[in-house]
Amino acid sequence: MLKTQNLIQKIINGNQLAGARLIRLLEEEDSAGIGMLKYLYPHTGQAFVMGVTGPPGSGKSTLVNCLIGELRSRKMRVAVVAIDPSSPISGGALLGDRIRMRRHADDDGVFIRSMATRGHLGGLSKTTRETVLVFDAMGYDVVIIETVGVGQDEVEIAQFAHTTAVVSLPGMGDDIQAMKAGLLEIADVFIVNKADNPGADDVVEQLQSMLDLSKRSETDWRPPVLKTVAVKNEGIVELADIFWDHRQFLIDSGAFAEHNFKWEYQFFRQLVMEMAADRIFDRAKDTPSFLELLDDLKDRKVDPISAAEKLLDIFSPG
Amino acid sequence: MLKTQNLIQKIINGNQLAGARLIRLLEEEDSAGIGMLKYLYPHTGQAFVMGVTGPPGSGKSTLVNCLIGELRSRKMRVAVVAIDPSSPISGGALLGDRIRMRRHADDDGVFIRSMATRGHLGGLSKTTRETVLVFDAMGYDVVIIETVGVGQDEVEIAQFAHTTAVVSLPGMGDDIQAMKAGLLEIADVFIVNKADNPGADDVVEQLQSMLDLSKRSETDWRPPVLKTVAVKNEGIVELADIFWDHRQFLIDSGAFAEHNFKWEYQFFRQLVMEMAADRIFDRAKDTPSFLELLDDLKDRKVDPISAAEKLLDIFSPG
Repeated sequence: MLKTQNLIQKIINGNQLAGARLIRLLEEEDSAGIGMLKYLYPHTGQAFVMGVTGPPGSGKSTLVNCLIGELRSRKMRVAVVAIDPSSPISGGALLGDRIRMRRHADDDGVFIRSMATRGHLGGLSKTTRETVLVFDAMGYDVVIIETVGVGQDEVEIAQFAHTTAVVSLPGMGDDIQAMKAGLLEIADVFIVNKADNPGADDVVEQLQSMLDLSKRSETDWRPPVLKTVAVKNEGIVELADIFWDHRQFLIDSGAFAEHNFKWEYQFFRQLVMEMAADRIFDRAKDTPSFLELLDDLKDRKVDPISAAEKLLDIFSPG
Repeated sequence: MLKTQNLIQKIINGNQLAGARLIRLLEEEDSAGIGMLKYLYPHTGQAFVMGVTGPPGSGKSTLVNCLIGELRSRKMRVAVVAIDPSSPISGGALLGDRIRMRRHADDDGVFIRSMATRGHLGGLSKTTRETVLVFDAMGYDVVIIETVGVGQDEVEIAQFAHTTAVVSLPGMGDDIQAMKAGLLEIADVFIVNKADNPGADDVVEQLQSMLDLSKRSETDWRPPVLKTVAVKNEGIVELADIFWDHRQFLIDSGAFAEHNFKWEYQFFRQLVMEMAADRIFDRAKDTPSFLELLDDLKDRKVDPISAAEKLLDIFSPG
């Protein structure tokens, strides 16, 4: 217990080794880890969470790297959750991307965590949420969530962010058409990176006309479309400014607190689901009626739906 | 009730409109839908589920289209679940891909369903599983699950398949290196599509040496590496044969039934989670103690973990 209190105190003080240790426990779904979050919770709710998402090869990591540099020059402490679906099961990170991040390796105002994605439904989202809480408790002013692609998982993770930037590239016109609806739903900023390549203005124009056509009231936020050349650090100051403008917009409209509550409620609901199932399986395990139910499932004598109903009726009546 | 029985009977008879209607109910998480699955369950357990996954642009849809043709010539009825993350929120399908599938539009031995992916954690996997059950009950001999990419969701969905083919392309060497571990975990067949392009043999070689290095006992299945040119229908007969060889391998080793039970147990566990939470929230809603808990959550007077524990203690004691 003393050790736990010690770890919690170190995390609140911003100790990176302690933070990494708790994140590992959470990834392993260690119940001690989730218990510690309780004590960290009063120290959370301050961080500004930015999402950066886009297809492979769009230069996201370089952009994030530049953004870290810009935010550091503004005296902010920055943590990054990099979600790496290229290695979905091993949990290893793509070497190249991480190397590019090394620029900030010796800066203790920067904490970068590559997420091991596990073969567990909803696991990635849950661990991401928990990791953001840990970073928040550690006192990072900004947490950047970097995700590849615009798949379902990535979209859900982007929705944890207060402000999400979607990165596209010159030549991506057709893809933009195809993913229109999904993009509009998540993007607060559109970035056209590698904008020194031909066709950048075409993509900007397509995005703008997509925005012109979308339904939005006068008072809504219209996502700006920004050209960047991340490898030359161009457009990064403007990008940081836009992130901050949007944050202010959210605070002024009351949406900032609303977002935070929405995520917390989702987290709460998911915890209820998992804890309720854990309690039921704990009660059930090794009982004759549970073993019989399993046998029936195996022999296809009962369907999974009826089996679930039966389990609940026996072990969670009421 | 008569209407429900009628719908169930039509589905068992293979009526596509009836099948589509139930799948829609399941996507909408309508409880009537899940109730109907109970009656379909005795008619399931026969379909051979194939997974085809790979990055955008690898020609998956064309391959799947050719595979349908080949399986039809072998007198099999084929259903396809096409998972389309390019439009994650709207649920709309990428027009191009679907148009290419039109070849089989008038063939009632073929049923193609584009999945609307919803903003619900684990929802895609659950609906995919349910859709496969419906197809199975409808009497389709083969269900093909087509997914884009190798993100986390896609990997999990590929794992529903008895046999999964991972599609790559000439020139993808580096990417293959990067996704090594994940690929080995899910691939039962490697396809190098567009094999008439330069560099195809390099990719084949890389995959083979990756397989040489991987740990596998003598009796294990070694994933074949197959070159195809889907647009010219080349390699498709061989591909169908490999799928069938692997199916036989699974049946002989007892793994086929084992896989089926594994998926059913996962489905059962997820149903327990959801039903348990539903029952608790049903009991809790509108009670003073629940409303108070929500207020405390909103005011950050309680953390989500403690709130979940409290809810369980009150509404699911034991």
